Amino acid sequence: MNYRLTTFDDLHVGQRASFAKTICDADLHHFVAITGDVNPLHVDDEFAQGTFFGSRIAHGMLTASLFSTLVGMHLPGIGAIYRSQTLEFLKPVRIGDTLTAIFEIDSIDRENNCIELAGWIENQRGEVVIKGRTLASLMRPRG
Amino acid sequence: MNYRLTTFDDLHVGQRASFAKTICDADLHHFVAITGDVNPLHVDDEFAQGTFFGSRIAHGMLTASLFSTLVGMHLPGIGAIYRSQTLEFLKPVRIGDTLTAIFEIDSIDRENNCIELAGWIENQRGEVVIKGRTLASLMRPRG
Amino acid sequence: MNYRLTTFDDLHVGQRASFAKTICDADLHHFVAITGDVNPLHVDDEFAQGTFFGSRIAHGMLTASLFSTLVGMHLPGIGAIYRSQTLEFLKPVRIGDTLTAIFEIDSIDRENNCIELAGWIENQRGEVVIKGRTLASLMRPRG
Amino acid sequence: MNYRLTTFDDLHVGQRASFAKTICDADLHHFVAITGDVNPLHVDDEFAQGTFFGSRIAHGMLTASLFSTLVGMHLPGIGAIYRSQTLEFLKPVRIGDTLTAIFEIDSIDRENNCIELAGWIENQRGEVVIKGRTLASLMRPRG
Repeated sequence: MNYRLTTFDDLHVGQRASFAKTICDADLHHFVAITGDVNPLHVDDEFAQGTFFGSRIAHGMLTASLFSTLVGMHLPGIGAIYRSQTLEFLKPVRIGDTLTAIFEIDSIDRENNCIELAGWIENQRGEVVIKGRTLASLMRPRG
Repeated sequence: MNYRLTTFDDLHVGQRASFAKTICDADLHHFVAITGDVNPLHVDDEFAQGTFFGSRIAHGMLTASLFSTLVGMHLPGIGAIYRSQTLEFLKPVRIGDTLTAIFEIDSIDRENNCIELAGWIENQRGEVVIKGRTLASLMRPRG
Repeated sequence: MNYRLTTFDDLHVGQRASFAKTICDADLHHFVAITGDVNPLHVDDEFAQGTFFGSRIAHGMLTASLFSTLVGMHLPGIGAIYRSQTLEFLKPVRIGDTLTAIFEIDSIDRENNCIELAGWIENQRGEVVIKGRTLASLMRPRG
Repeated sequence: MNYRLTTFDDLHVGQRASFAKTICDADLHHFVAITGDVNPLHVDDEFAQGTFFGSRIAHGMLTASLFSTLVGMHLPGIGAIYRSQTLEFLKPVRIGDTLTAIFEIDSIDRENNCIELAGWIENQRGEVVIKGRTLASLMRPRG
């Protein structure tokens, strides 16, 4: 299969990409399969109901993993190299929430092969549940 | 089931926790199931072999998700609330790599309910593949 | 800590042991953490509702793992060595079902260090959900 | 999410599937959380060192649970119904062992909706630690 690598000519400051996903119980199971993180806040209804969250919530890093999809599939996209990510976990995410992950290019430094993006993830009520900043580079096509 | 919430009396500066995990192909499939991130660098052997990585690599955010387990299960542990995380992706992680995720408490601020941790993930050769900083709070037991 | 190993003098044909447990969502998460088995019948409500099961069911081997507790903690108990197990999965187990796992010694062969047990697991309606047969041996105390 | 159910046309005698996993201490903790099986052979280093095993070993049923993943995710795969399983526990499994679970179809009976599989789990030295036989059926797609 052939893929077209993103180049700097494909990118401009202010460019946006986004995608949406509804969090379901299976997502938590997949995340637990990777991490083993069975913190009862995420997997035990009774425990979670006794906390101020009032119900089980998705792992923050599960939600944050949607940034991975933006970097690798959307902006910069195929050929991107993920350099760094900051994450602020602002609101809980519950099973059934529909999230939209959004990226916007803040700056492009061709010389140093560095793209800086602002990212945030909103729920179906427009509340930002996670925000962060991303640095990515582009792979050079092989000569 | 009863759980004991971590309290500030359980924690001290310099305290460490760690756990190990070998990354296997199934982990990538679980991550794809959550994120839909099928960037060919992670899922297409032929494409990955043609890049300077030379083989498929795990999604950076997949590896970073091991910090979730440290926060929620180890340090601070049950009752932790994840506030923020920074991540620097330093080295590629390949299928079969055995990773050790490590946390160390840098500072504890009881008044503002804030614990700061340094975290890093090493591979089987002792190379740091990800490093970052974490802020977490503790849930208060219900009165 | 000192433990008393079970000896043949502790055991007789017809001897029974049992214990009960309610299956909760956290159990499925723990099982997925071990196995990575995210078959949608176990983790995806919508998929499971579309099958003749009508709802998510627990992994059969999750339920069967209660036999491990009987062998190692109850009958024969501490010092038991698990030799073999057969399992017939007879009825689905749903989240919230309260299961009782029961063992009964069928035969004891001191010379060949072999104890044979019949085991079954019932739900709260008295239906047998799994049945099987077990062979176990006893560790000899160190001289 | 849409899943494709395995059909008899996907299967043939001799067909194999496998997957690998390294057993870590967290797996034992997850298993204890499900079963409550805290037999000291599995959780007490000092006790285990005093036995002829010489170190803690994983619960046999924990290792056997990898067959669940093969049935539900690989062979037959999604849409499989687990009918029965036999298990012979042949060798101890220690923390750090890398296990490969393997299934091979022995016979297919379309009329009676019955697939018979031989299964075995090898450690990193190629030793078979568990072997067994499996019967599974296929769910019919809803008409």
